[in-house]
Amino acid sequence: MTNPYRPAAEFRAQLRRFLRRSEEIARRIGITPRQYALLLQIAASEDGSSTVTQLVEQLQLTQSAVTELVQRAEHAGLVCRRASSTDGRVVHLSLSETGAARVAEMHAALGPERAQLRRIMEALTDD
Amino acid sequence: MTNPYRPAAEFRAQLRRFLRRSEEIARRIGITPRQYALLLQIAASEDGSSTVTQLVEQLQLTQSAVTELVQRAEHAGLVCRRASSTDGRVVHLSLSETGAARVAEMHAALGPERAQLRRIMEALTDD
Repeated sequence: MTNPYRPAAEFRAQLRRFLRRSEEIARRIGITPRQYALLLQIAASEDGSSTVTQLVEQLQLTQSAVTELVQRAEHAGLVCRRASSTDGRVVHLSLSETGAARVAEMHAALGPERAQLRRIMEALTDD
Repeated sequence: MTNPYRPAAEFRAQLRRFLRRSEEIARRIGITPRQYALLLQIAASEDGSSTVTQLVEQLQLTQSAVTELVQRAEHAGLVCRRASSTDGRVVHLSLSETGAARVAEMHAALGPERAQLRRIMEALTDD
């Protein structure tokens, strides 16, 4: 009988390798893994800008964790803030030129890793 | 033009949701997410037992982190240790009855989450 835990175990092991590799690349580029997560979500947003509320859901972090992450990223020159023209309490976050360059570099470097992870996952059968 | 960052961003967001959900289920079952990772790798192993060396690679943790994780899991009655019959320095780790029950429960509870993650990932096209 085939071991029923094999696909899930292999999936987790591959996921951890992917996340670890991703961490290494982020450090090499000079950003933290969380900063990459932040920059990527902003880069992928509809009009190139995100609100803290959107990022809370996408990053699965608390409001205060996102706020702190954004402050540090702003301080590092990676993101820009501007108040909403329709609601002054809402802040729109967009990428600075440096932030856009970092996310492009990281996204390109991770391309082969994503492709490999997808190939492995597609080959796994599960319940 | 399609936003080139959308697939990677969506993939990360789904991954974080999966890991978060997985954490919630582990806590409900009364184990830590890392204990689940440990139990799952042992459960999936060839003959139902693993060595620390194997777990270091599978869990992407240091030798000392795995050793501590194993000690706590043994203390919690989840895993059993026995010395190798051929090399006394090597320890074989297997699941206790409780450990086997916890991993079965967790694996079953996560089935729909794994299936959803796989469906979403297969629908994403990337470079």
